[in-house]
Amino acid sequence: MTQARFDVVGIGNAIVDVIAHAEEDFLAREALVKGTMALIDAPRAEALYQMMGPAIEASGGSAGNTMAGIASLGGKGAYIGKVRDDLLGQVFRHDITATGVRFDTPAATSGPPTARCLILVTPDGQRTMNTYLGACVELGPADIDPDIVSAAQIAYLEGFLFDPPQAQEAFRKAAAIAHAAGRQVALSLSDPFCVRRHRAAFRDLVDGHVDILVANEAEICSLYETGDFAAAAAAVRGHVAIAALTCSAAGSVILASRAEHRIAAAPVERVVDTTGAGDLYASGFLYGLTRGLPLPICGELGSLCAAEIISHFGARPETTLSQLVAEAVRA
Amino acid sequence: MTQARFDVVGIGNAIVDVIAHAEEDFLAREALVKGTMALIDAPRAEALYQMMGPAIEASGGSAGNTMAGIASLGGKGAYIGKVRDDLLGQVFRHDITATGVRFDTPAATSGPPTARCLILVTPDGQRTMNTYLGACVELGPADIDPDIVSAAQIAYLEGFLFDPPQAQEAFRKAAAIAHAAGRQVALSLSDPFCVRRHRAAFRDLVDGHVDILVANEAEICSLYETGDFAAAAAAVRGHVAIAALTCSAAGSVILASRAEHRIAAAPVERVVDTTGAGDLYASGFLYGLTRGLPLPICGELGSLCAAEIISHFGARPETTLSQLVAEAVRA
Repeated sequence: MTQARFDVVGIGNAIVDVIAHAEEDFLAREALVKGTMALIDAPRAEALYQMMGPAIEASGGSAGNTMAGIASLGGKGAYIGKVRDDLLGQVFRHDITATGVRFDTPAATSGPPTARCLILVTPDGQRTMNTYLGACVELGPADIDPDIVSAAQIAYLEGFLFDPPQAQEAFRKAAAIAHAAGRQVALSLSDPFCVRRHRAAFRDLVDGHVDILVANEAEICSLYETGDFAAAAAAVRGHVAIAALTCSAAGSVILASRAEHRIAAAPVERVVDTTGAGDLYASGFLYGLTRGLPLPICGELGSLCAAEIISHFGARPETTLSQLVAEAVRA
Repeated sequence: MTQARFDVVGIGNAIVDVIAHAEEDFLAREALVKGTMALIDAPRAEALYQMMGPAIEASGGSAGNTMAGIASLGGKGAYIGKVRDDLLGQVFRHDITATGVRFDTPAATSGPPTARCLILVTPDGQRTMNTYLGACVELGPADIDPDIVSAAQIAYLEGFLFDPPQAQEAFRKAAAIAHAAGRQVALSLSDPFCVRRHRAAFRDLVDGHVDILVANEAEICSLYETGDFAAAAAAVRGHVAIAALTCSAAGSVILASRAEHRIAAAPVERVVDTTGAGDLYASGFLYGLTRGLPLPICGELGSLCAAEIISHFGARPETTLSQLVAEAVRA
């Protein structure tokens, strides 16, 4: 096994977020399920956008956010995902490249525009996402660059990739390349509805192809069709080497062989917007793993990064995370 | 004089902001003057964007920000400005319309794209702006809708309008319509360099066509070519009915006939990004005037709105300003 040139390669839906405040009754009126992600088509995206309040645009995408976090921690990252050769595609490419993450996937030159996610943030800070996949449906196995994937310690795949049809194949190709190169494969379950849509495929992956699983309570419960977190946590044991299960304000639980580590959430003065909380937890956790840190420390890094992201609007860090970690270590 | 259908009509450069953090040495390397606005052309905008860190996009424009603030305070507003029929133009239109501000100016269907302002926020929270005017150069007298202007208590004009060549004419047309309808004309000086570029024209306006002047220390000093704020404040007396002069953290001074009111800045826990501070001061101040409030209260409303905007990234309010005011009144 050669020396890894990258710590992590993230593979995911390349999305620009459109983020606005919304009242609870807006969600009710539009039949949106708070805290989850719904897939929408272009006309619905247009209609919903017209109804939304004033918004800001910011690069997003689950694995994209995670990679931006890893770069901000000082890690070396690469990203694979599909944008269109349009303005939002340029914005996405600029932002992830400007963090120092390598992003070589060519933009689609025809077909649907760059994906956008209309995110409604309610007064409680919870985010509800509505994704128009756009150019993400063009991501296919040909976009998986074996040189990049085999050169990264960890290939990190977001569960949302199971929604665009061709991307599942890209997903499996990346996992196979990573394992053939002696690397590890990490998977995020992304969303309880996403898990429900693709439960059998996810179970199959978790059984045989994933080393590190990242999921929140709702997602792991959906995977094992139980309402009981402890039962879901017990069910995942043995299927993956490491499972990092996040429980919002209650922190996270890390399972590895027979060990179980309970990690507290890092304190936050005010939860402004939970968008990216799971993504940034993954940044800290995976970065810690690539540095060979003990699992509880990896979890604490995850907590710290998640706390930064939920203290402001948007899912990419506004603070240099390596400085945040240095301050936390000193304190 | 008929009943006004609008409290304020804002006329300005319709711009989408691209906001990123930057270190002091980036400004030095690129010869950018901190706290000011520089005009840039399309190639420079592209080059600067490539050098900038990860950014967010948010609707901006000085008068646009002010109008969003007035709407958030509960005021009825209209806006006149020029975008192109492109994605950023749609974003600008969506955002200002979603605040409740009427925006009917037709988009340009040819010519340069919607304007953007590359804003670099240094660790001290100061913003340095680089504006590519794009479609703003298409704004002309034909875009000044007499029905709208004559129906607003105050026509508010941003000084930046003096940069796109045809806009000066639009500016004068709007002032003439407003006065013919018995309305008031307010002007913001916008930027010390903008004042320097157009000093004679500004002096002429302030002498005979402006009722309410909003400016900061550097701008009013530039207008009267003095380094002494007290001298500049003395010089403006008599030229306008009301002058609201802002002094950053030192608050503001309001001059009217023989009266002088000193207003404190509202406390801010941490200055995150000063972008829009002057624009939002104008929101509070003008809104207060349209409600017939005493000048010191108008100034305090300005301070309160400015404090909200500098406590987060971006120049449009993230909080409902009317609620903020209600809370301040209760406290």
